[in-house]
This record gives sequence, structure tokens and C-alpha cells, in this order.
Amino acid sequence: MDLISELVDANRILFHQRIVDAFGHVSARHPEHAGRFLMARNLAPGQVTAADILEYRVDDGEAVMAGPPRLYLERWIHSEIYKARPDVMAVVHSHSPAVLPFAIARGARLLPVCHMCGFLATADGMGPPTFEIRDVAGDASDLLIRSRELGAALARSLGAGRVVLMRGHGSTVVAESVRVAVYRAVYTEINAKLLLQALPLGELQPLTAGEAEATRITNEAQVDRPWNLWKQLAAAGAVAGS
Amino acid sequence: MDLISELVDANRILFHQRIVDAFGHVSARHPEHAGRFLMARNLAPGQVTAADILEYRVDDGEAVMAGPPRLYLERWIHSEIYKARPDVMAVVHSHSPAVLPFAIARGARLLPVCHMCGFLATADGMGPPTFEIRDVAGDASDLLIRSRELGAALARSLGAGRVVLMRGHGSTVVAESVRVAVYRAVYTEINAKLLLQALPLGELQPLTAGEAEATRITNEAQVDRPWNLWKQLAAAGAVAGS
Amino acid sequence: MDLISELVDANRILFHQRIVDAFGHVSARHPEHAGRFLMARNLAPGQVTAADILEYRVDDGEAVMAGPPRLYLERWIHSEIYKARPDVMAVVHSHSPAVLPFAIARGARLLPVCHMCGFLATADGMGPPTFEIRDVAGDASDLLIRSRELGAALARSLGAGRVVLMRGHGSTVVAESVRVAVYRAVYTEINAKLLLQALPLGELQPLTAGEAEATRITNEAQVDRPWNLWKQLAAAGAVAGS
Amino acid sequence: MDLISELVDANRILFHQRIVDAFGHVSARHPEHAGRFLMARNLAPGQVTAADILEYRVDDGEAVMAGPPRLYLERWIHSEIYKARPDVMAVVHSHSPAVLPFAIARGARLLPVCHMCGFLATADGMGPPTFEIRDVAGDASDLLIRSRELGAALARSLGAGRVVLMRGHGSTVVAESVRVAVYRAVYTEINAKLLLQALPLGELQPLTAGEAEATRITNEAQVDRPWNLWKQLAAAGAVAGS
Repeated sequence: MDLISELVDANRILFHQRIVDAFGHVSARHPEHAGRFLMARNLAPGQVTAADILEYRVDDGEAVMAGPPRLYLERWIHSEIYKARPDVMAVVHSHSPAVLPFAIARGARLLPVCHMCGFLATADGMGPPTFEIRDVAGDASDLLIRSRELGAALARSLGAGRVVLMRGHGSTVVAESVRVAVYRAVYTEINAKLLLQALPLGELQPLTAGEAEATRITNEAQVDRPWNLWKQLAAAGAVAGS
Repeated sequence: MDLISELVDANRILFHQRIVDAFGHVSARHPEHAGRFLMARNLAPGQVTAADILEYRVDDGEAVMAGPPRLYLERWIHSEIYKARPDVMAVVHSHSPAVLPFAIARGARLLPVCHMCGFLATADGMGPPTFEIRDVAGDASDLLIRSRELGAALARSLGAGRVVLMRGHGSTVVAESVRVAVYRAVYTEINAKLLLQALPLGELQPLTAGEAEATRITNEAQVDRPWNLWKQLAAAGAVAGS
Repeated sequence: MDLISELVDANRILFHQRIVDAFGHVSARHPEHAGRFLMARNLAPGQVTAADILEYRVDDGEAVMAGPPRLYLERWIHSEIYKARPDVMAVVHSHSPAVLPFAIARGARLLPVCHMCGFLATADGMGPPTFEIRDVAGDASDLLIRSRELGAALARSLGAGRVVLMRGHGSTVVAESVRVAVYRAVYTEINAKLLLQALPLGELQPLTAGEAEATRITNEAQVDRPWNLWKQLAAAGAVAGS
Repeated sequence: MDLISELVDANRILFHQRIVDAFGHVSARHPEHAGRFLMARNLAPGQVTAADILEYRVDDGEAVMAGPPRLYLERWIHSEIYKARPDVMAVVHSHSPAVLPFAIARGARLLPVCHMCGFLATADGMGPPTFEIRDVAGDASDLLIRSRELGAALARSLGAGRVVLMRGHGSTVVAESVRVAVYRAVYTEINAKLLLQALPLGELQPLTAGEAEATRITNEAQVDRPWNLWKQLAAAGAVAGS
């Protein structure tokens, strides 16, 4: 199926673009069965091949096959978002390095400041929300979304948004297609890097709500162009990834 | 034509030097027809070959050929600058990462601080101006120079200068040759990186106006040396680009 | 012996992950003889092969063989820690670049802020201690642990912990296996990088003691996954190391 | 001659370690004729081969051969230092990126903070001096050492030291051998990077004068180890240099 091939490419791109490393995962909702989604078995993203893609149930986050191989500990990040958000067709979870500071510092806002990053705008103008796992799991958890309950809590934090930060952990990004989800994961990291460099220079000018939406529409209409370039780069540097 | 070959090299160098990525473009005015310029079709710079170079009209920014392939959305950055500036023979537009913070923070000045970057000096001593698209397109645009009117507004911001920053977007650099335009694009990024690191250290000493002009003349007379090195590096790492 | 092969991989991984460069070393206690440990001869880690691994005595830090080749100047970092800590089965000493600032600035605390780095927590909540060699060797030493006495002083600073910073020098990381020691060395560097970027953003939220321990247990149980990925990456980029 | 081969390696190492790029140069005094020195013709360091090494006169900085190819514009950096400093046997001039901020910000001190960088200590405890070319050449120069007079002024700034910063330009490093000069160039850059990261963390602890001298002696006695590793890395990545 084309979607399996697209998911394999997504894994390789996210690894080569250094959004994921040994950890992190990307999934896609089944194009014909809204109650199913596709994702690799428990494997580092850079090593995923078509044979590693399994089918899962949105309902309980488990693999459809009997006696599956080891699965990602945090598969409920994906299943519970698909459950809460019928519009979402792809999910990326990562610990991308420039985003993490924003998931660690109180009150740091990941506002969109460049025209490739308009999708980061939120209705309340505050940028993506931060999911604080202590609110649900107490203060001695291992911070992982390891149950349906925790996945549902994360999905509530995400709300109707596109990106949710996860305190001390990373972020999760959603979209209506694999290509747009990967684009958003890469550009969330780029916007974060840009903010880290720009903040010391003085008062910043984020995009207005109108600019954010206009730039988002324009860029997501062109998503094939960065996708094709990233796919080519990942193929050339697939193992080294550095 | 030699200029086509030079333009292909420019695309590859700018990509390998990480000035452009999937986005960004470089053009050259036709050496015999001042009303024409050369630029790739809508393609990631790192993938441009001689067969992708098209001829455009300065007058309306459109391709000369009938039924052209997809063109860059922002071709009027180039056409309107060629129109306003008879002295300009090459234009580079990019979103290079260290420059963007200066196009986002109010009042951050990209002053030349090292002897490779004298071209950044401006008559008013304030460093390159910043084009604010809201002044022309309102506050809900997608920040792209997608018309003659917007290109003309950008050209007015550039004035008689060499570099113009574009708020929330990137920068545009001009020169009297492709090699000098590429040099300026690379060193605008290097000067920006240097400022980002030096600003926390204390009061900086920018070049005097005299030093800026003397260093500019010296370095631009030697432009073949970095060009030849960058061309060799780009050939060696053309696909990976990392 | 499998452990020799594991040690060679550890050297290659630490070099490829840029934790060590020309300097730094990793050792493992002999699985059958608690009074012996294995480590390379004096060689840059990226160049270590199985033939370079020697056996040393915990008691005096010397090689067991007669007429050994040149040994690491700081082998007592390893021998004295094995002596003081019967639980420790592997030691990594490095000058990894993001950790050094924390070994240079008074009062900078390397607290665990992300879920991969829980092992950095200490009983006193202050993060890893810093060994100040002036306390033992006066203020004109070359900062190297070049004797049993200095190794014993370092081991006292480490105490019952997992990581000790060494002022003006680097750090030493210990664990109950080679894989976990390498994991800890890599993630101490990652946590340090994260703190350097996050500190300017505002008040940080370190992991609670409970989160640190829970995340440590979870991640160390999965250590084979990053280890296998890093081993594959190191094999692909073994010589370039860049 | 072995020294020619060593100089070629030095050029390749400095390029691969990103101390020099298209610009920068390294020279060595002739081992038998104190009034002569060896250096490449005007060529990017990464492209230097044995056939490019020429012999120059210390007295006037010119090539010995009749009708030489193009020479480095700043050869008097080398000749005037060899003239003023009979103890110096090798000189490296570069624009290495982390050092430049210290050559741009008033009062920023490049003090040695780690045990690989003790050579940066100076008798007055202030770290390397900064040569301000305006003192000799007025305020409209191109900042280049393009005459014997300017080279002599730079040598006066260097005095009896090992490193001199050049405002708005870069630095020059000297030593009693090519290997130690290259080591010092690489570690001046590393110490600068470390300071840039550590300064925001709080009060720093530089090495004492005694520690600086002790560490310098220890590390320079081991210079073959990093040299051999860097030589191997440069050979593997010679063209890409990235």
C-alpha cells in the first residue's frame, strides 16, 4: 500500500532531519478504516522498513495481529488522538532537541515567528499548550504515555490544536496527512531553534493570527517540495543520519 | 552559456553552504539583454541542473517561453529589483537560519563586525533595512512577494543597498555578479552567526565606514578563491548537503 | 570474550557520538575477577580494536602483562572507582563539550530536566558533585588523575553517585554495565546541552526525585535500543567520526 | 622533506577541524636556515599539496624563487613573527568562528578554563592580547596585514606570547613546532566555544597560572596523539571537510 511506503519514508526523513533519534514514532490512520492506524513495531525510526509496519486498533491501541512483536510503549499517544480527533490522519511524537527547552521552562511560548511556521498559531494566541503529566499520573511517573487514560489526557491537552508540548519529554504533532505531519514536526523544531537565537536580541514580532493562517495554507499546499528534497537527502544519508 | 553553468553552481553552493534549503532562489540578469534574467524553474536549489534554467522578463516577472513549467511564487523579488536597479546583475533570496533572528527582533542591527563582511555597511550606519510587508499587504498576508507590487515595495526597501531583511521571512542579497551575490549571501549568514555569539560578551566594535568599504573591495576582488573552494565542496557533497 | 567486543563497540560509539575525541576512556570490570578490569592501551578511543584491550589490576591500576605498551595517564580514575564501588562494572571518563561549562561555572547545577536523564538525580537534589582537584593536589597541578591518591579522592567525590564532574576537566560516569555507562555518558551530554539552551528561557522544572528514579528504571531497561542504533551509526561513520 | 609533508598535513587538519576555511594559513621556519620559512602559495588550505609549498625570506616576506605564483596577501604575519621571535618555529593564522567574538567584543577575555588550554595563559593573567590595527593603519584599512610594518606591529602585540587576537579579523597562534601550533589553534577555538557556553552560567573558574603551565607541559608532550587522530580524520574527509 502507498501509505506504508509513505510511512517508511516519514520515519527515514524524521530520523535524517534529526527530529527523532533512537526514540520517537510516526503513525497514519488507515485510509479506509477510521478505527485502524498504521505504525512500526518497536524499532528505532531510522531502521524502519515496510515489513515493520503493523496495523493497530484506535479503540485500545493494540496491534490487530495475534502474537505481535514488541510494540512502542507509548502507542496510546497515537490511538487516543485518533479517537478524540476524527480529522487527524497522522501523528508524530518526538524529543526534538530545540523544542525540549520550551517543554521545560515555565511560561516559555513557542510562538510562530517565521512564515514557514504559521501552523503553530493557536486560537488563544499563546502557542501550543504543554501537557503536564503530574496532573494525571502524580509526581513519580516515568513521564511516558503508557495507558489509554494517559493518552486520553494528552489528547485533551492537544484539544483542537496541531501541536502539544509534553513537559520534560518532547512534543506531539498532528495533521491531516503524513506529509503535513512530518512538515510540522520539522518546522516546529526550526521555529524553536529560531526563537532560542532571537530571544536574546530584543522584542520579537510573532506572526499575526491572519499571517499565521495565510502562511500555513500556502506552505501546506507546497508540502511536496520539501518532502521530495528530504526524501532524497534521507536516501543518500540513510544510515549515518548525521 | 557560461552564465547558466555559473547559476547552476550558485544553486549548488548555496544549498551546500546551508544558505538555502528546499526554499530560496538565485538569479542572474542576462548579460546581453538587460530586460531579461535567468533563474531555475520552481525546484529546490540543490536539485537544479542546466536544463532547469529558464529565461524571464524583468518587466512582468514571467517566463519568456510559452507554457512554462511551475515557476517560483516569488519571482517578483528578482524582476522588480532588476527593474529598480540597473547596476544589479544577480539576486539571492534565502531564509538562512542565523539571519532570521535579525528579521524577527525589533531593532536588532546586522552591522558588519568582521573583515569578510564589510559589504553589510549602509550609508546611514544602521546596517541592512528590514522590509515590513504589513506596510503594503496588510496584516494577514502569507508574507510572500507574490506580485509586481510587492516586489516593487521590497525593491524600495532595498534602495541603493546590497542586503534587505524581510521580517519573519528571510533576506535578499544583490550584487554585480553571481559570484559576489553568493559570497554576500554566505557572509551575511556568517556575520549574523558571529553577532549572535558576540552580543552576550559586551560592547561590540563594528567596522568603521572606511574599514567596511576597504574590506569589501579587497574581498570582492578575491571572490574566486572562496567560490572555487565552495564549488569543489558542493560537488563532493552535492546530495547529502549536510 | 564478549566483553572485549562490547568495550570496543563502546569506544567507537562514544567517539562517534562525540562524547570522547582524541582523549577519554571507557573500562569494564572483569566479569569473573572483581579485582581486574579491562581497558584499551593508551590510544584515541575511535581507533581502539580488540587487540588493544588490556587487563589491569584494581589494586594498583597497572596492567597485568609484563612490559605493557603505553597506558592511559589517568587509569586510576577507573581502578580507584572499582575499588571504592563494588557495584560498579563500567566507567567512562570524557571531556564532552556541553558538560564542561558545568564543570567550570561555580554553582551551575546539572539537574535532570528530561525523561531520558533521570539517572542524574542525586540524594541531595543538587545534581552531580564537582571534584575540585586543588583540594588534594594544590593549585599548580595539571588537573590529571595521575595517581592512586588522586583516583581515591575522585572516588570519594563520586561517593555513591552515578556521575561526578571534574572542575576544568570533564566528567566521569559509572554504571552496572558497559551499555548503561555509555547511555549515561551520552545523556549527561544531552541533558547539559538542553540546560544550556533552556536556562535563558526562564524558570526550569527539573524532574522530581520520583520521576527521576522512575524514568531511570524505564530507560535503562530499554538500553539495547539506543545501543544498537549507535553501534550501527558508529560502524557506518567509524573513521570520519564527524 | 619531512617538514613539507608535515605542513601539508597541518593545512588539511586545520581545514578539516574547521579552524581555517577558504582563508587562513600555516607556516614553518626552515629547520636549517633560520632566515627562511615554508608556506603554501596563495591557495585555500584544504587544497594544499606538497607541490604548493614555497620557501620565503624572513627578512622581507617574499618568495625565494624568481617569478613565484600568487602569494598570500598576509605573508608578513609570518615573516615578521619569525623575525621578532627566534624561538618560534611555526605560525597559524585563522578566522576560526568561536574566537572571533572575542576579537570583536571590548574587554572579552579568552582565559584558559580547561586543562587542554593552559597555553592561553599570559604573564599578566589577562589572556591573549588583541591587536587593534587602527593604531597603526588608521580607521579605513581593510584590516589585512599587508606589509612588513603591519606585520611588525602585530608581532609587537604578540610580544612573548603564544596567541594574539586581531580585532574584527581573527587570531594568530605560534609555537616551537608545527604540531604544537596546530594543537594550539584547535584548542584556542575549543576554549572559546567553551567560554561562550559557560559565561551565561555564572562566575567562571579559570586555571591558575600554575595549573595553566602544568597542563600546557603535559598536553604538549602528548601532541602526537591528537595530531595522529586528526590526520586520520582529515584523510578520510579531506574534500567534504564537513
